[in-house]
Amino acid sequence: MAKIYSFFADGLEEIEAIAPVDLLRRAGNEVVTVSITGSRQITGSHGIVIGTDTVFDENDYADGDLFVLPGGGPGTQALKNYAPLRALLDEKYTKETRLAAICAAPSIFGASGYLKGRNATVYPGMEGTLAGATPKAVPVVTDGFVTTGRGPGAAVDFGLELVRLMNGDKAAETLKEQLVYQHTSVV
Amino acid sequence: MAKIYSFFADGLEEIEAIAPVDLLRRAGNEVVTVSITGSRQITGSHGIVIGTDTVFDENDYADGDLFVLPGGGPGTQALKNYAPLRALLDEKYTKETRLAAICAAPSIFGASGYLKGRNATVYPGMEGTLAGATPKAVPVVTDGFVTTGRGPGAAVDFGLELVRLMNGDKAAETLKEQLVYQHTSVV
Repeated sequence: MAKIYSFFADGLEEIEAIAPVDLLRRAGNEVVTVSITGSRQITGSHGIVIGTDTVFDENDYADGDLFVLPGGGPGTQALKNYAPLRALLDEKYTKETRLAAICAAPSIFGASGYLKGRNATVYPGMEGTLAGATPKAVPVVTDGFVTTGRGPGAAVDFGLELVRLMNGDKAAETLKEQLVYQHTSVV
Repeated sequence: MAKIYSFFADGLEEIEAIAPVDLLRRAGNEVVTVSITGSRQITGSHGIVIGTDTVFDENDYADGDLFVLPGGGPGTQALKNYAPLRALLDEKYTKETRLAAICAAPSIFGASGYLKGRNATVYPGMEGTLAGATPKAVPVVTDGFVTTGRGPGAAVDFGLELVRLMNGDKAAETLKEQLVYQHTSVV
């Protein structure tokens, strides 16, 4: 099973934050939620208060197999402005550790130059923030070790894709059945 | 805009709890989350801590247009066992106020006799708890003033249906676009 870190800030999009954590834990992974605000309690962009397992300085991240960024406008801006997280992501990118971001958050990967020459997705209208990527109008894209998701409506697809990457196709299919996710994406 | 109450207990399914609140608030409604445990902090079945706006006794519920129950095995059991909530639902059912439940929680409506002669859905394998309903293997069903959803994979559909009921078809369509919910259900 994999070890995953997901980074939370005030103003995150709640479905995008919760769904990947829920799905990755359902598949048996260890997911650590990390507040970048210094407080173990953050408030999402729709007023929902969510507790985190840790604050940023409590982890050393050496054992991380996957690093996840939820979206939401103000939440993404807060993650983007938090230099210790940006430095950690740079280190993990250099080591080709899996990275994932959804909605507005792929713009952080764009700003850091992680998307050059890759296929990627982002919230509609933000394609210009993907710096060097080929934007795809689909719920989720994995190109190499970088996964991007499009918006809150893609949060379950994004979570299922992360389970597929961490635990394999069969685990993702089993989970999809368990969730009763009776959907196909319409592009 | 409508006033909605959603009832949270430890062991709820996090996506099912969060998605309807998020979507209904996006559409401009006032959603009050209500803990039935006496604590404003509950822990979901995948270890995610969620804050609530109120505890049960702090509201009188007279102004509620819609009452929502998320699922999750232990969370549903806790809601089912909480007599003050059951009495409130009985009162609202008698007045034909809108009620909604997802995943395992439609079993509470079944146990209270609210589903007799209705079409309804529930988590697969639990159809026997719908007492007198015709079970439908679809993400969400509204029959009269009672709406039921099937599982965590249907949480966004369930939230969109509640927006449709509270705010109209156009509001639900606009929200679906805003979420970038590029899906159709496969039945």
